[in-house]
Amino acid sequence: MSEFLIARREYKPRGPATLMDLYGSGVSEVAGVESLELRIADLFPKTAHQGLLRVEVGGTNDLAKADPLRVGAVFSGGQAPGGHNVVGGLFEGIRKLHPDSTLTGFTGGPSGILKNQSLPVTQELMDGYRNTGGFDLFGTGRTKLESKEDFATCARIFDHHDLDAFVVIGGDDSNTNAAFLAEYLLEHGSKTRIVGVPKTIDSDLRGPFTETSFGFDTAVRVYAELIANIAKDALSGRKYYHFIRLMGRSASHITLEAAMQTRPNVALISEEMARDGKTMRGIVDLLAKVVVERAAAGKNYGVVLVPEGLIEFIPEMSSLIADLNEIIAAHKDYIESLRGFTAQIEYLAGRLPRESAATLAGLPIDIQRQLIMDRDPHGNVALSRIETEKLLLELLSSQLGELKSEGHYHGKFSFQTHFLGYEGRCAAPTNFDANYAWSLGLTAAALASSGHTGYLAAVHGLTLPPDQWQAWGVPLVSMLTMERRKGQDKAVIRKTLVDLAGPAFRWFAESRDAWSIGDDYRFAGPIQYFGPAGLVDRIPVSLTVQ
Amino acid sequence: MSEFLIARREYKPRGPATLMDLYGSGVSEVAGVESLELRIADLFPKTAHQGLLRVEVGGTNDLAKADPLRVGAVFSGGQAPGGHNVVGGLFEGIRKLHPDSTLTGFTGGPSGILKNQSLPVTQELMDGYRNTGGFDLFGTGRTKLESKEDFATCARIFDHHDLDAFVVIGGDDSNTNAAFLAEYLLEHGSKTRIVGVPKTIDSDLRGPFTETSFGFDTAVRVYAELIANIAKDALSGRKYYHFIRLMGRSASHITLEAAMQTRPNVALISEEMARDGKTMRGIVDLLAKVVVERAAAGKNYGVVLVPEGLIEFIPEMSSLIADLNEIIAAHKDYIESLRGFTAQIEYLAGRLPRESAATLAGLPIDIQRQLIMDRDPHGNVALSRIETEKLLLELLSSQLGELKSEGHYHGKFSFQTHFLGYEGRCAAPTNFDANYAWSLGLTAAALASSGHTGYLAAVHGLTLPPDQWQAWGVPLVSMLTMERRKGQDKAVIRKTLVDLAGPAFRWFAESRDAWSIGDDYRFAGPIQYFGPAGLVDRIPVSLTVQ
Repeated sequence: MSEFLIARREYKPRGPATLMDLYGSGVSEVAGVESLELRIADLFPKTAHQGLLRVEVGGTNDLAKADPLRVGAVFSGGQAPGGHNVVGGLFEGIRKLHPDSTLTGFTGGPSGILKNQSLPVTQELMDGYRNTGGFDLFGTGRTKLESKEDFATCARIFDHHDLDAFVVIGGDDSNTNAAFLAEYLLEHGSKTRIVGVPKTIDSDLRGPFTETSFGFDTAVRVYAELIANIAKDALSGRKYYHFIRLMGRSASHITLEAAMQTRPNVALISEEMARDGKTMRGIVDLLAKVVVERAAAGKNYGVVLVPEGLIEFIPEMSSLIADLNEIIAAHKDYIESLRGFTAQIEYLAGRLPRESAATLAGLPIDIQRQLIMDRDPHGNVALSRIETEKLLLELLSSQLGELKSEGHYHGKFSFQTHFLGYEGRCAAPTNFDANYAWSLGLTAAALASSGHTGYLAAVHGLTLPPDQWQAWGVPLVSMLTMERRKGQDKAVIRKTLVDLAGPAFRWFAESRDAWSIGDDYRFAGPIQYFGPAGLVDRIPVSLTVQ
Repeated sequence: MSEFLIARREYKPRGPATLMDLYGSGVSEVAGVESLELRIADLFPKTAHQGLLRVEVGGTNDLAKADPLRVGAVFSGGQAPGGHNVVGGLFEGIRKLHPDSTLTGFTGGPSGILKNQSLPVTQELMDGYRNTGGFDLFGTGRTKLESKEDFATCARIFDHHDLDAFVVIGGDDSNTNAAFLAEYLLEHGSKTRIVGVPKTIDSDLRGPFTETSFGFDTAVRVYAELIANIAKDALSGRKYYHFIRLMGRSASHITLEAAMQTRPNVALISEEMARDGKTMRGIVDLLAKVVVERAAAGKNYGVVLVPEGLIEFIPEMSSLIADLNEIIAAHKDYIESLRGFTAQIEYLAGRLPRESAATLAGLPIDIQRQLIMDRDPHGNVALSRIETEKLLLELLSSQLGELKSEGHYHGKFSFQTHFLGYEGRCAAPTNFDANYAWSLGLTAAALASSGHTGYLAAVHGLTLPPDQWQAWGVPLVSMLTMERRKGQDKAVIRKTLVDLAGPAFRWFAESRDAWSIGDDYRFAGPIQYFGPAGLVDRIPVSLTVQ
């Protein structure tokens, strides 16, 4: 074990006093049920009428138990720093309530439940994982449990393990499914109560009591470290534009936070591009304007941040992707029987609506290939494989060539591309994420022991010191909304996009003009785990601006 | 300025006592001249007969000066963490010897000398850059000063600035040119003495008194941080092979050190591949063996490190590249007049020797494109643009497909690729690099004031605590050797490759079998600048093994 891990193991996560002494705390219903959409309420006859819960000292439902608790847990979906601390807080919490309580982790993600693959958590095991990154304690996976058959298997497995409660550590989809599972178990007389924990580095699972999900802070801090290093490089060599694509599907929270921390010349925010109806050409115009202005100031270098999800927010690209997915879904076997790119693209292009065919034809060949040949496990276009930054660069280069030939641009344009994703998803959690995840685990323990089901563990007030944070249980059903997916209305937790009227985006929008021409790159260094409080106890900038 | 930079500015670099009190030190010639190759000695009638110098307390050539020193400096070539500390040490050193000494930085790299672009270093300016990454204090560039005309201009500019000494902070080529410049200046009666400082993250500028160059430690630590995060990710999700290409042209020191720090499943060392005469197919066989064995153990994931320079060490690839460069050089204008990839490749393929034509035809189309279309500023194949990891993956995927159809492989093979380079080159220097670079700067100050010319500043004994390090001046000519370059014999500093008989490689070679099947990934965390000495005062592992 490295010196780093040995030293980091000593860090004692902090959290609200209520959670730190669960034995003297209770869970109270503090607000009635929010009015739900009727169609949603109808889907949840058993759990639709639950109110907001608060974990507090001397709450009405004293948590101290005569009997040990038997709890299960699983990681669902992509890794996020702090996952092991959720488990650590959960384990500590249920053991505080009764020393003989047990925690069972299902391995390899939700499919581990179906296969009944699990391992018991012990204090010794947990001690080796406290404050570490990754989900390797249990592993993870993307299997979605959403059918009645899956739920029936869960009920049987939970019964086999005699679980009082089961904790799902996952994102929007996993917590949506947790809501349905909670309802199913209650309806079928299972004693197992379901608690969700909001996890995703994307931070797109937000709500009135969830300012961010755990893992976001750490992942962005790693990206910000690297972006700042790259910006220093740009500033030293003065010869490259660095286009940096950042992980984070759909919402641009990661790009926005990274931009606030590092102050690049341009950061594209997908939600803004969509609001303004920007086409690919419109975005390239915007980039060209900055490059031309900087060249006029003698600066042929810069840093541009591109959110991974951008492409879905550009009207003609999202139409093209939807059209491609539809044709592929309808003719999957035949398309796969066609050998090679040329045959496949000819077939597809011939069946696309005219506008999408034109969009496809206008794309660089590499991007065409990525759209056609890379598919996700469901056979859809694999959006995360599309190198949007290279697409933008190819179009931008050609536009700059035109501007040069017309005499409007006199610079030199050379570039490097980067994709930052896996580099940060399993970093050791910052103090903030270590504390937050631990507190979420303790909150989940409180909810698990309180007899309620279908709740999301929530810890609120994150800009305050951890001992002033508040712990809540938010009914999962209250987070659901009807959305059209694959041609059907579904009750889902909608991804929280960047709020263009919110203080974080406004701060960014007011600051960025200065950044685009000046070189105001901010260099905050790598995450520091030891040293002055001002360095080790930071929180995301986007949470702090008012 | 960020809290990180403010806090880091307080770090006081450490170094040998002799350097910390230059005023009481001297420079002594401690060894006679090494016997030089005759052809090299002939090139350096003025400087060939200089011996090894040592900076020590009470040395024979007392450094204390009655007059202030006027010194110039320049960054040459790629950025390396610690560059600003070389300047800081140099500035502090010459001011200790006389408070009115001055330091002038030439901006934008060696071309800044030719253009006479410079800025004066002040204490206030320096304070803002101490312990920071990047070369943005002066900027840098890749212009090579190697012609008599360039040297004459240098002499004129140095004379204009009345410089007693000039310090070149650069790699092997820059220090080679520094040797010739020193000879030229002496021959032409210039008073300006030349001192070189060994800089490159590649660490390929080694010698008996230069265990590594500054910047290597920091850059590799950043890469190791990210590799460990990626390995955690692989271990958590258990579904991807991550192929990680690492910056570092020619020599594989970066890959070797990163492997020793992180323990990946495979790390390809170019020098070993070359020694064993491995073809591309041979390397793919080696990778396939590990993938098949891991799959048999239920592991369809892993981490593979690929040095950027690998492709030059593979016989058929290096022949192909040499042949392409020759044809391109001979027919440059015509080839550039051909529009597009297809026309160019047809022309080139028709002129290649038969074996190289076959090699080219066997490469994936993306790689063919990178070979043909991406050129460096000299018109040669741009080796750093070639995505070797993707080439290996494409060949490996097809080989695994064959093995599967033959029943020898039953796994699933999915992958992600990464290139780590610019992410680490401008990080804030570790304590080791901060100390080492500062000490090199002080050594350069001692040499600058001692009246010698054509020396490389060297600080030795790096595995000892900094106060026990020793400072040397190594004659640049003693590092030269004749090498055939572009059809001519040239005196150059030869790049130091990985020593396959040395302790570092042997340690790696003895350990790696266990790593290939086990998951022994080591997670050392990001660079820590504050905290326990065991964490903040580390040195490269490859320097410490015996």
